[in-house]
Amino acid sequence: KDSYVVTLLPGDGIGPEITAATKVVLEALCEKCGFTLELREALIGGAAIDAANDPFPQESLDQCLNSDSVLLACIGGYKWDNNPRELRPESGLLKMRKEMGLFANLRPAKVLPQLLDASTLKREVVEGVDVMVVRELTGDVYFGTPKGIDIIDGQRVGYNNMIYSESEIDRIARVAGDVASKRGSKLCSVDKANVLDVSQLWRDVVTDVINKDFPSVELSHMYVDNAAMQLIRWPKQFDTIVCGNIFGDILSDEASMLVGSLGMLPSASIGESGPGVFEPCHGSAPDIAGQDKANPLAMILSAAMMLQYDLDRAEEAKMLEDAVEAVLDQKLRTPDIKQDNDGCKLVGCREMGEAVASVI
Amino acid sequence: KDSYVVTLLPGDGIGPEITAATKVVLEALCEKCGFTLELREALIGGAAIDAANDPFPQESLDQCLNSDSVLLACIGGYKWDNNPRELRPESGLLKMRKEMGLFANLRPAKVLPQLLDASTLKREVVEGVDVMVVRELTGDVYFGTPKGIDIIDGQRVGYNNMIYSESEIDRIARVAGDVASKRGSKLCSVDKANVLDVSQLWRDVVTDVINKDFPSVELSHMYVDNAAMQLIRWPKQFDTIVCGNIFGDILSDEASMLVGSLGMLPSASIGESGPGVFEPCHGSAPDIAGQDKANPLAMILSAAMMLQYDLDRAEEAKMLEDAVEAVLDQKLRTPDIKQDNDGCKLVGCREMGEAVASVI
Ligand SMILES: CC(C)[C@H](C(=O)O)[C@@H](O)C(=O)O
Ligand SMILES: CC(C)[C@H](C(=O)O)[C@@H](O)C(=O)O
Repeated sequence: KDSYVVTLLPGDGIGPEITAATKVVLEALCEKCGFTLELREALIGGAAIDAANDPFPQESLDQCLNSDSVLLACIGGYKWDNNPRELRPESGLLKMRKEMGLFANLRPAKVLPQLLDASTLKREVVEGVDVMVVRELTGDVYFGTPKGIDIIDGQRVGYNNMIYSESEIDRIARVAGDVASKRGSKLCSVDKANVLDVSQLWRDVVTDVINKDFPSVELSHMYVDNAAMQLIRWPKQFDTIVCGNIFGDILSDEASMLVGSLGMLPSASIGESGPGVFEPCHGSAPDIAGQDKANPLAMILSAAMMLQYDLDRAEEAKMLEDAVEAVLDQKLRTPDIKQDNDGCKLVGCREMGEAVASVI
Repeated sequence: KDSYVVTLLPGDGIGPEITAATKVVLEALCEKCGFTLELREALIGGAAIDAANDPFPQESLDQCLNSDSVLLACIGGYKWDNNPRELRPESGLLKMRKEMGLFANLRPAKVLPQLLDASTLKREVVEGVDVMVVRELTGDVYFGTPKGIDIIDGQRVGYNNMIYSESEIDRIARVAGDVASKRGSKLCSVDKANVLDVSQLWRDVVTDVINKDFPSVELSHMYVDNAAMQLIRWPKQFDTIVCGNIFGDILSDEASMLVGSLGMLPSASIGESGPGVFEPCHGSAPDIAGQDKANPLAMILSAAMMLQYDLDRAEEAKMLEDAVEAVLDQKLRTPDIKQDNDGCKLVGCREMGEAVASVI
């Protein structure tokens, strides 16, 4: 296959700029490598609320499902922050994950030698860190029922059910086992099994799946509070981490700080079959939107993950990653990764995209 | 009042050694300041399981409730790790919190100038950090029902209810407002209100309580994933943080890593009235138990919190804290806080306790 349909979801804030920069890069790649991407835009987040009063309209969902893959920029902004929950941009994201069956979220946190000093952690602590967090994405307290806010005995009570079934744990454990076996073959499963029944089941099922079907993967378990410490104390102890949705939300963001800048971090959300969604970990940064100050590299690296996981083009994925390292070696920096006196050149979003494209 | 009954719970692992060192310090303090502490030991954790097949026997609970305050060392060990949950040391801790109504856990993370280099974060990031995490301790998914592991449609399903009532949130918000107003008057409430109903209620109630009854406290809100990042990115932005039980479990441990060593960190668990429980944040370190290598300073600082919060002796609390800083200034270090080439003297648990006592 050498022609693919990709849905582009530019979203809000800096989304359109980083999408434009990523397009330039993908076009260069297609030309160089002899394949075509048909890029079709659709609405999500605040842009979709404004246009269709729905953060992820059926039309967008259909278009995503009819694609080979989906590339998402970022969503959200002050403008929609006080909307009722179902009319907030985040709800579009959650709906997309659930409706597209994207149960596995892969969040690499790899420290690049060029950006070692961007981290608030000491050089010797973060040098060489390469952690992959595999987060379950369609279960847990995010989607559990019963949930709500009721009046009980004259006072309000809020509740959400933290719940996992065996099959949900089984399938994410398989993704994690597979990911780990292609990396350092060390998998750390994070839970709170000393307190929670749902974590006890999590631990039992993960142990069964890995021991039985991934015998070459070395499995360990860690409580979530300890994991939050160990990620700071000595992150190099980790290779692949697997956890539920809410613990993964917290730990993957914490892990991203090891790298220093969210502006460099991609993610992949994938399901059993069908298209995945690839997106940078950063938000929509409304304060700098439209000023050509955004860093497009996380979205470009997300496109690399798309090539690897959805389009089965590992070679081209590698080419993109190398091109990103090359522009860093050329000492080009967007404001978020520029340090005082680092001897680097400050560039805008567009120039950064063009630099990556011309390396390719 | 110049005579108090204090229950000592030495627990497991290094617990007995650090308790002994703390006793020496408290005796010196009593002598110096002219008050008496009647110290009565009781069982908890693995020690209680071995003696009475119960991680927190009724007898221990009664004794705690009949004291002015409780000082706990630490619990747990490999020996009991594979017991059924109700016969694990942690269950004793949870039972103690619930039965004694200890709904507020105060976890200070204050970076001492003497130990600046112990942190894995850069000096300029942690210098001057002084964060207090106020964690709710008797609610949330820790104690919520329904919970369990059932068979549903032929497969196991594990679940725990993440639940808070208005009155539970109200009372922890009041503690946090009070604590914040005695510190920097900045309170950051952490939740996941963009996804969870229980967090939406949390945010609404905290906002009402603080705005109405703590007008001098500046309140902000942060999502838990962002808080996990910001604690690493720029911890000095925080003064007092308030959060639910599970988010507090994770964030307070993460915050403790800013300080570098758990061996220095105390905590207080308090209720509406009645005795509180004061304990170091570290575990029972079974690997070094009985070797006179443990750091007693966190337990000594916990005794300082006891003097401040339960025995209303703020002056004596300050004296203890100053004595701890003094022995650090004397360059005494237990192994956990010793750095290569720091020019300090390595001491054991006993010697460290005696050094604090002789400063007093
Ligand atoms: C925006 C929010 C709903 C979302 C989440 O919690 O999953 C975000 O934090 C993320 O990690 O993608
Ligand atoms: C041991 C465990 C049950 C406990 C908790 O999760 O509360 C511990 O981590 C703590 O923070 O005191």
